[in-house]
Amino acid sequence: MLRLPKNFESFPEARKSGFMKMKVHKDNGGKIVGTYCSFIPTELIIAAGAVPVTLCATSEEPINAAEEHLPSNLCPLIKASYGFALTDTCPYFYFSDFIVGETTCDGKKKMFELMNGIKDTYVMQLPSSRDEIALTMWEAEIKKFWKKLEDFYGVTITQEDVKKAILIKNAERDLVLEYLELGKLNPSPISGYELGTKLDTLSFIPSMEERCKQLRERIDEVKADWESNYKGKINRKPRILITGCPNGGVRDKTIKVLEELGADVVAFDACNSNREKIEKVDTTLPVTKALAKKYLNINCSVMSPNTNRIKFITDMIYDYQVDGVLEIILQACHTFSIESYNIKKAVLAKGVPYLKVETDYSKADAGQINTRLEAFLETIAV
Amino acid sequence: MLRLPKNFESFPEARKSGFMKMKVHKDNGGKIVGTYCSFIPTELIIAAGAVPVTLCATSEEPINAAEEHLPSNLCPLIKASYGFALTDTCPYFYFSDFIVGETTCDGKKKMFELMNGIKDTYVMQLPSSRDEIALTMWEAEIKKFWKKLEDFYGVTITQEDVKKAILIKNAERDLVLEYLELGKLNPSPISGYELGTKLDTLSFIPSMEERCKQLRERIDEVKADWESNYKGKINRKPRILITGCPNGGVRDKTIKVLEELGADVVAFDACNSNREKIEKVDTTLPVTKALAKKYLNINCSVMSPNTNRIKFITDMIYDYQVDGVLEIILQACHTFSIESYNIKKAVLAKGVPYLKVETDYSKADAGQINTRLEAFLETIAV
Repeated sequence: MLRLPKNFESFPEARKSGFMKMKVHKDNGGKIVGTYCSFIPTELIIAAGAVPVTLCATSEEPINAAEEHLPSNLCPLIKASYGFALTDTCPYFYFSDFIVGETTCDGKKKMFELMNGIKDTYVMQLPSSRDEIALTMWEAEIKKFWKKLEDFYGVTITQEDVKKAILIKNAERDLVLEYLELGKLNPSPISGYELGTKLDTLSFIPSMEERCKQLRERIDEVKADWESNYKGKINRKPRILITGCPNGGVRDKTIKVLEELGADVVAFDACNSNREKIEKVDTTLPVTKALAKKYLNINCSVMSPNTNRIKFITDMIYDYQVDGVLEIILQACHTFSIESYNIKKAVLAKGVPYLKVETDYSKADAGQINTRLEAFLETIAV
Repeated sequence: MLRLPKNFESFPEARKSGFMKMKVHKDNGGKIVGTYCSFIPTELIIAAGAVPVTLCATSEEPINAAEEHLPSNLCPLIKASYGFALTDTCPYFYFSDFIVGETTCDGKKKMFELMNGIKDTYVMQLPSSRDEIALTMWEAEIKKFWKKLEDFYGVTITQEDVKKAILIKNAERDLVLEYLELGKLNPSPISGYELGTKLDTLSFIPSMEERCKQLRERIDEVKADWESNYKGKINRKPRILITGCPNGGVRDKTIKVLEELGADVVAFDACNSNREKIEKVDTTLPVTKALAKKYLNINCSVMSPNTNRIKFITDMIYDYQVDGVLEIILQACHTFSIESYNIKKAVLAKGVPYLKVETDYSKADAGQINTRLEAFLETIAV
């Protein structure tokens, strides 16, 4: 049973209403920079007086068009990103002054070369490790991006501008984390489907104040609801942690189904969630070093080695009282797919059931996934 | 019709005879470092008094075992590399004191994490671009690898040691290039199947002198043969350039078939061939900078952008008088697969037919590939 608030905004609805707000922002001379990944230091974009927006990447629709240029055996998120650009069907891509990509994975790295033929696509070169050499390189990349923003917009970005943006983003991270930590409450008062959808659509709201206001209100509402209706009751639903690839494009056939089958999705080790929110930018360090350090520590599987992620997940299993872990792998995502070998071992070593689902954006495997999720929940004794 | 010399050594034969030589080397206290990729600056390994050897990665046999740990939708070269290690069936892996991997692609980067559980696997962090930031980072990685070799073997590697090794490797590159440039002769006096096989087995010969002696003899033999039997005759065979992924594991169902069907495979834009051999290490620069520059310029598709490769291929089409280009993509190799979109455009713009074959190490698609190659050759008017 899926429990959603009366005013729940679905992803398509949020995308649409965000589009109107973004148009107003743009019509008033506002600047917009399009991004695809949580490794991009959006503080710099904010410091340049622009709005960073996460671009469309979670729909099956433009994939056929993308496959005219890209191989079909490729991550659906990458194909969708490119397909939206190619078919000019992502309003946020259309509104973006330029795009900033990153060399996180092979597929995106090479896709951005083609995207650059559609719209100016600046690529940040992300290293794969976290030692001093990598940190030095990444800090240099951050300085280069700073310069790119200054040159592109013809503005000067001061240290103070960036410091202010860091405080704004850190505050947003804290708030998002407070929202996500509603999942720690037991019994769970909020649907994981709602949590994920909200976080994926947050950047469609150009005003940071509006964004934080919505989150604050919903957090307070859920907390009040918990006090009145959940506190002290015994939970009889299995509590699931979601890990792996970005799940926005497959949320309906995984997270929604789990909740319809009677589970509570309570925790996320995902790009839009704890993975990026947990570590703040250190305000005591020089700004470029602080940004470099924070973003390099995001425990995405593109990093190698990425042992942090194992500790992160096992900590979350404890903190969120998790009964089972579902790892979502998008088709042909080599880094998460290979890393899942060690994730599975670590989760099982904690005595927690683990299921890996590899899927794409088509509906073809929805029935099969449903059956597997059903069987998975049966193995979880609560 | 495949024309091979009487004393042609097949890959399995060369692997076997190399094994005996390597055993003698090892029994006499010789050092061996295993590698998988032409981005590794083998000069440093030679300077440490060790022999760099290219490890087994081109057979289907160990792939089933590898898939116990790795996803099946992954490059066969990566699965084979890991499978040989896991099943302990690569004698060179067995003899290696340690392994040196690299973060060239997502699959290898993450596979090396697992390989490190089997044998000490040191990973060089390769950047994806070629600007000053990347060059600085890669030079730091080269210095770090230098230190790793010193620490591992308890030796001091001097600048002079490295300079000597650079001269040795540059001379070998020149010789290999002279061997490859036999393909420029028209009509072609040497089989591309022979060229590729020889280059893939070269590092199985521990003695550099022996290696160069064999190449020198064969070059002289082929040149003499050309003077007597080919010079001045009219070529009636289509001349093919091979590009794309390492082709050692699929040579029999692609290159061999092309030649059996009456084509001459005359040129290679491949890891074991011109791609790594064309640029020497600059002996006028400080050694670590010179090594960094040379290796960063290898035009593998993991680099982004990698426009050099287009010029490289179109130059080769002219220099080797190429009538058709076959691009070989190993299954799920995202970088070569995506880059092939631009390669195809560039080759066709030269008026040269282009065919892309995506395959793995199984024999299942051999018949289908045969049919496609036959059709491809029919389109090439000579």
